[in-house]
Amino acid sequence: MPDPLGADAGLAGPVERKGARTRRRILEAARKEFGRLGFERATVRGIAQAADVDKASVVQYFGTKQNLFHEAVSWHIRIDELAGADPAESAENYLRGLLTNWAANPDSPMSVLVRASMTSEEAAEMLRDRVTGEAVDRIAERLDDPDARLRAAVFAAVMMGLATHRYLLQMPDLAEAPLEDVLRIAVPVVRALIEPQS
Amino acid sequence: MPDPLGADAGLAGPVERKGARTRRRILEAARKEFGRLGFERATVRGIAQAADVDKASVVQYFGTKQNLFHEAVSWHIRIDELAGADPAESAENYLRGLLTNWAANPDSPMSVLVRASMTSEEAAEMLRDRVTGEAVDRIAERLDDPDARLRAAVFAAVMMGLATHRYLLQMPDLAEAPLEDVLRIAVPVVRALIEPQS
Repeated sequence: MPDPLGADAGLAGPVERKGARTRRRILEAARKEFGRLGFERATVRGIAQAADVDKASVVQYFGTKQNLFHEAVSWHIRIDELAGADPAESAENYLRGLLTNWAANPDSPMSVLVRASMTSEEAAEMLRDRVTGEAVDRIAERLDDPDARLRAAVFAAVMMGLATHRYLLQMPDLAEAPLEDVLRIAVPVVRALIEPQS
Repeated sequence: MPDPLGADAGLAGPVERKGARTRRRILEAARKEFGRLGFERATVRGIAQAADVDKASVVQYFGTKQNLFHEAVSWHIRIDELAGADPAESAENYLRGLLTNWAANPDSPMSVLVRASMTSEEAAEMLRDRVTGEAVDRIAERLDDPDARLRAAVFAAVMMGLATHRYLLQMPDLAEAPLEDVLRIAVPVVRALIEPQS
């Protein structure tokens, strides 16, 4: 038996690390379950099972299924970080950033949210808020154009269409093409939307 | 009691019409159920209930759930009909045709198939076949360009992104804009993809 005092003294570290690991495992399981079943049909019980923890732990860490969903699919569109000094550079940065992120992980928060948004109004509402607040608003304010908002919205739709066809739906021609070829064809299209003067 | 011979004589008409009505009602219910639940989770029993017929009728008319799904979400992309004599005209025709069809009916076969394709490999496979065979192939063969197939695939992704954001996800800026404004901004983008020489 280890010395209880010694164990207690050393506990904060390992327990915290174990807590962080459990939390991460639950979030990963949640993304898989929400991605596979959608928001309405995924259950806290099923997620707990997939994460190999009991249901009470999921509730303890995340509260409701809705909260867990929000944390599991939370992601940010880093328009300001990606925008280049030159608008021509921005278009390539945005598209490369988006496609590289989606490519990196098919169970990414964004990918799961987009998939779930097709059969859940809850998820669609989150996606609308995120895309409008973090992409459309930010792109529009960089545009000096009477159609700034609509251009930014068309831009967002085009970006999402490309990412969805290449990764979520794996349309053969787009999924199999090297990233640089996709960028060569698609960047001028995106650029024309956010650089109307050119 | 009506005269059996008279009834028989007149039966082919009304029975056939009733059959066509029942068939249509089952297909409509199937689109709603598949759209709401996805392919895997929708059931023949649930569709029968929603159509107010018994399960045996659904089986009699459509056989398996898979067959019913195929019929319910079958739609065609009429590239050849929409293509104008002038390629510049084609871009507008394609986009107007797509957006007008989706707008007309949120439970359209295409809309249901796209929604279902996000959580069903069965549906994704159908969508890939349809988009590749009826849009990418047909657009590519009209392009005299070494990147013809990739351009056509990017075109398909852009079109789907616009329709999805405007109708399925109802992104506010794109959903609320008049169709003519969307076309004014988006047609030049689509045109640049399928008219690389310009």
